[in-house]
Amino acid sequence: MASLAFDSGSRPTVNPDIASERGDPTFPLEKLVNLLDGGAGRTRTRRAVDHLVNSDAVFNEENVYFLTQTERYEAAVKRAVHLRQKMKKLGWTDDGPEIEFAFRALGGNVAFGVHNGVFIPTITELGTDAQIAKWVPLAKDYQIIGTYAQTELGHGTYLRGLETTATFDAFSQDFILNTPETSSIKWWPGDLGRSANHAVVLAQLYIQGMCHGMHAFIVQIRSLVDHSALPGVKIGDIGPKMAFEHVDNGYLMLQNVHIPRENMLSRYSEVTSDGSYIKQGSDRINYISMVLTRVRIISRAIVPNLSKACVIAIRYSAVRRQSKLKAGEMEAKILDYLTQQQKLLPQLATAFAFHFMSSSLETFCNQVKVQIKTKGDVSLLPELHALSAGLKAIISDNCSAGVELCRRACGGHGYSMLSGLPSLYTLVVASCTYEGENTVMQLQTARFLMKCLTRVDCGQPLPQSVSYLSEPITLHCSAKEKSDFLKPFMYVESYKRRAHRLIKDAGIKLQSLLQSGVEQYVAWNSTSVQLARAAVAHCHYIVVKNFVEKMEGLKFEPEIQQVIKMLCDLYALTGILDNAGDFLYDGFMTGKQLDLVTACQLDLLALVRKNAVSITDAFDYPDKQLNSAIGNYDGYVYERLYEWAQKAPTNAKVNHAYEKYLKSHFQLAQSKL
Amino acid sequence: MASLAFDSGSRPTVNPDIASERGDPTFPLEKLVNLLDGGAGRTRTRRAVDHLVNSDAVFNEENVYFLTQTERYEAAVKRAVHLRQKMKKLGWTDDGPEIEFAFRALGGNVAFGVHNGVFIPTITELGTDAQIAKWVPLAKDYQIIGTYAQTELGHGTYLRGLETTATFDAFSQDFILNTPETSSIKWWPGDLGRSANHAVVLAQLYIQGMCHGMHAFIVQIRSLVDHSALPGVKIGDIGPKMAFEHVDNGYLMLQNVHIPRENMLSRYSEVTSDGSYIKQGSDRINYISMVLTRVRIISRAIVPNLSKACVIAIRYSAVRRQSKLKAGEMEAKILDYLTQQQKLLPQLATAFAFHFMSSSLETFCNQVKVQIKTKGDVSLLPELHALSAGLKAIISDNCSAGVELCRRACGGHGYSMLSGLPSLYTLVVASCTYEGENTVMQLQTARFLMKCLTRVDCGQPLPQSVSYLSEPITLHCSAKEKSDFLKPFMYVESYKRRAHRLIKDAGIKLQSLLQSGVEQYVAWNSTSVQLARAAVAHCHYIVVKNFVEKMEGLKFEPEIQQVIKMLCDLYALTGILDNAGDFLYDGFMTGKQLDLVTACQLDLLALVRKNAVSITDAFDYPDKQLNSAIGNYDGYVYERLYEWAQKAPTNAKVNHAYEKYLKSHFQLAQSKL
Repeated sequence: MASLAFDSGSRPTVNPDIASERGDPTFPLEKLVNLLDGGAGRTRTRRAVDHLVNSDAVFNEENVYFLTQTERYEAAVKRAVHLRQKMKKLGWTDDGPEIEFAFRALGGNVAFGVHNGVFIPTITELGTDAQIAKWVPLAKDYQIIGTYAQTELGHGTYLRGLETTATFDAFSQDFILNTPETSSIKWWPGDLGRSANHAVVLAQLYIQGMCHGMHAFIVQIRSLVDHSALPGVKIGDIGPKMAFEHVDNGYLMLQNVHIPRENMLSRYSEVTSDGSYIKQGSDRINYISMVLTRVRIISRAIVPNLSKACVIAIRYSAVRRQSKLKAGEMEAKILDYLTQQQKLLPQLATAFAFHFMSSSLETFCNQVKVQIKTKGDVSLLPELHALSAGLKAIISDNCSAGVELCRRACGGHGYSMLSGLPSLYTLVVASCTYEGENTVMQLQTARFLMKCLTRVDCGQPLPQSVSYLSEPITLHCSAKEKSDFLKPFMYVESYKRRAHRLIKDAGIKLQSLLQSGVEQYVAWNSTSVQLARAAVAHCHYIVVKNFVEKMEGLKFEPEIQQVIKMLCDLYALTGILDNAGDFLYDGFMTGKQLDLVTACQLDLLALVRKNAVSITDAFDYPDKQLNSAIGNYDGYVYERLYEWAQKAPTNAKVNHAYEKYLKSHFQLAQSKL
Repeated sequence: MASLAFDSGSRPTVNPDIASERGDPTFPLEKLVNLLDGGAGRTRTRRAVDHLVNSDAVFNEENVYFLTQTERYEAAVKRAVHLRQKMKKLGWTDDGPEIEFAFRALGGNVAFGVHNGVFIPTITELGTDAQIAKWVPLAKDYQIIGTYAQTELGHGTYLRGLETTATFDAFSQDFILNTPETSSIKWWPGDLGRSANHAVVLAQLYIQGMCHGMHAFIVQIRSLVDHSALPGVKIGDIGPKMAFEHVDNGYLMLQNVHIPRENMLSRYSEVTSDGSYIKQGSDRINYISMVLTRVRIISRAIVPNLSKACVIAIRYSAVRRQSKLKAGEMEAKILDYLTQQQKLLPQLATAFAFHFMSSSLETFCNQVKVQIKTKGDVSLLPELHALSAGLKAIISDNCSAGVELCRRACGGHGYSMLSGLPSLYTLVVASCTYEGENTVMQLQTARFLMKCLTRVDCGQPLPQSVSYLSEPITLHCSAKEKSDFLKPFMYVESYKRRAHRLIKDAGIKLQSLLQSGVEQYVAWNSTSVQLARAAVAHCHYIVVKNFVEKMEGLKFEPEIQQVIKMLCDLYALTGILDNAGDFLYDGFMTGKQLDLVTACQLDLLALVRKNAVSITDAFDYPDKQLNSAIGNYDGYVYERLYEWAQKAPTNAKVNHAYEKYLKSHFQLAQSKL
């Protein structure tokens, strides 16, 4: 029973049900916070930014759950402009930790993500110095807002199939842009629907009837005076989506739109005034920037949704009581039910696994970028591409599934928007599609793995992350008792073996099809389901290995190493149980060994459960960032649900439906009752 | 490439890419339609109702994707009142096929679901003849609108924990109702937030300080004159949810609200004027009605979401082209990619499996109801309860996962609300929680299964659906070649064996814990994860067995039997692959046998793919019911997305954000560009 606390000021600061969860004085909370932030210095900066954002009226005007799509868009634009002013005033740099933390604090809920994150960087990477000097200052000052118009109604992943054309007209010295078919209409670009007056348009370059492939062009699309669409331009918003209400994803049709020759981004390829096409240098540096963007999306826009969902669901589960486990006692906290622990605690472990993985990947990515910039050494690029594609797929898939599992574990209240959980799901699940659809991503990783298999056959050395493919395969898991499965090498070896087998099996199938005379594309398609599975198994192994390395690196901090070890074990063993078939197939593990894993996992659940709330506290999300009526730090779930519901627009006094359709009916009953 | 067809009237009626999918003249489309409808007569009735609903202006006023929560609610009330008028005019009965089909046609998008589906039936089942005579006619005529107020902020599943009280006051002869705590506020009831003026309130009955458990009371909550909350009543809407925007789920606080003694529903228990409490007869007939409601929800509100999602995603995949499988050819339809087939086609098979399962369950349920009504024979109730609980869990879980898989398989366009897919998901996933949270449901089935195990040990006979628990266990799957897995007895046997083993293993663990002296509730909780899995495996077996029986019953209709057999095989074999660990554990199947299953499934995918579009056509959903820009019968995906987006409210001319925050910035650029 919760008291009618909203009627009185007498309740304790924190709900005793959740306060009691934080009772362990030896729990290394602050150290964990620092670990997750990436150092005590970054924790200090983050908290300062959190405070600044949370105490700013403009950033906190309205409860987002009550706004229409248009209202959310308007609020997001307002916040973006406000944030830019703050940045200027406080001297924050574009790449500094302050702006990173400000985005974290705002939950990405600001406009101009594509403008800042893609439009400007594309000009910076693909533009000449003169183009950069002309456009970037205007864009940074929001004097122009640009979008990145690549995806078309009929084409997403397959870039070569894009239909938009840019035809060079030697007479006018212009490029003439066209979206010739319904299917070529640019569709989905963010900031396009209502904000942008410029676009980087990706189009097939035609010169004298010859196609030179896809290039990027700066096109003005709306008037700078009255924001109307320019001649030849049709433009608008694509309408409601599953989430991202604050973003004006738009469409763009171009009919004979002329742009000057200087508007082709020309650092790496140029069209001269006489219509000659000149390529110069490699645009791989642009490619590496795109990969870095993808990796940052993983760490900043995908993984945090899972950690937030864990915080909300675990706090709620420590307050929510249901049924009596034992007659005569209070109803039990739902977090004390094994089924609930088995849903939530592996998700918490997964959030840590992915947090560490994305941070390692970012480090690797930066290392490759430096190698390319300083030495022109692109040798690590294929490995990085394969890793980032496959990891993006597994992380976005599992984060989506995990958020939804957390949401559903909160029962009916998890279905209320006020819990914050539905919007975490609808937001994170988009990442399974954008920045490369996940199945496509898996198959790109698989293609790399197949190439590596060929190298093994030829005795060539392998990139580090796949070097295990040249090692001999382990036939049987050596675990004999429960405690064996708490040894990281045991489960790392198991994941390695699983990946190894699935990759080899896919390779064998592919080769045997090819050898039987089947055409390459048929063989690939026929093997694609196994290939995708192999890629997932490879990435799963990488994540487990990385988690173990991170944990082992904490040897001088035994207090937090103990916590991380527990989560690492739980993550790895749950993955074995969830994919039992892969480990049992061909007898690598036996049913008995699997029973040991099950027993081990149950022990770990009990261990993690003890400090579960404190572990979620380590993500250090201020209540405003969770924006959840059921996930606040203080655990006053029912009081807040009630308070927030009062403010819903559906509780406005006017009820047209009653006046129009019900009143006359109801009055008939008046005399009878 | 799709032509700019929205500019011209010259396109063929049906997109050639989808027309070509319907080319098989031997495909038994109409027979399949009849099979799914339950007979040719029902098909005729359904089509007449579809026509009536689709051609009615009131039912089709606005595109639901563009409305606010309040607008959806108002439209739903309007439709409900309009539907009631139609019913009267056309002489439709409350239980007839016409109204069933009208709800199907409206996609449940009408108000007063709880009023019609729970409030009225509860009075009918639990009320005395006098109470029925007083309240039901008013309710049927919408002179009163009632809700069913059971769930509280702090209590859902655990009914005994409900905190609302109804205290008999002998002096006034009234019951006095109270929701004493924050956690006791009634929360979630549909039709409560804005519509209802009455409620059946579930409350603990107190007489002279003694609690007699939960009873149902009719409480007037709003004035019949001006719709204001009555004294002592606080009432409102609970705010935004993940879906069900058209339903005014509400909250209700009661403080010393008096209702006359006659307002306790008294068919089975009564409080006399002197405060005596009298119980009479059994309310099991009410229980069976609740089960029937649950079963109808499965067939009418859960399964159709999956079949709709399959229709949309498969039609889209036959039109969407991406990448060239082979150089020089057109880009391939995404339905020709094996990875896409492997996502979508098993979902189609699942939709059929669940369609047949829910219809068998409804038959069983009606049979039990007749037995109880005519002979007072309640012997089948425990089995029915266990079956309906477990099946509800597996069906809602798998339908939710399936809809989401279909949605994601449509890439970016599946994320647009205009595809219809996001709302199918957010709607269907609620069913994992309402009418019994799925884990709770699984554990109820498990409890029944454990009781059955005890009966086996005592040599007692078992109910029909679990009779296999007394049969000897099969040690090894006997399949030797691929074709063996196309024999239904082979996979039925495999599912049976899996269920058998998981149930026995859970039973053994439970017993050994109990024998080691662990308390009952601890033993149950410690085994709960295995118990839930066992229940799922049992229900999975039941679904496969039922599918096979349905298929075998079609022996006189070989054309459709062939189609159904293919889907049945696909459903069963996919389930084996998805749960490989269960079949490999302890060597029931070998890795080699699993490879045969994989090979077999690939063959089936190729077979089903041939007529996939025609099979989805057999659900016979008019376009208006799908309400999907990408799932229409004619396959004009891009044209419709474009047309619909134009109407989005985000394309309204006014753009406050531009005027307020951007205009002055943009004007600065004017002189520089």
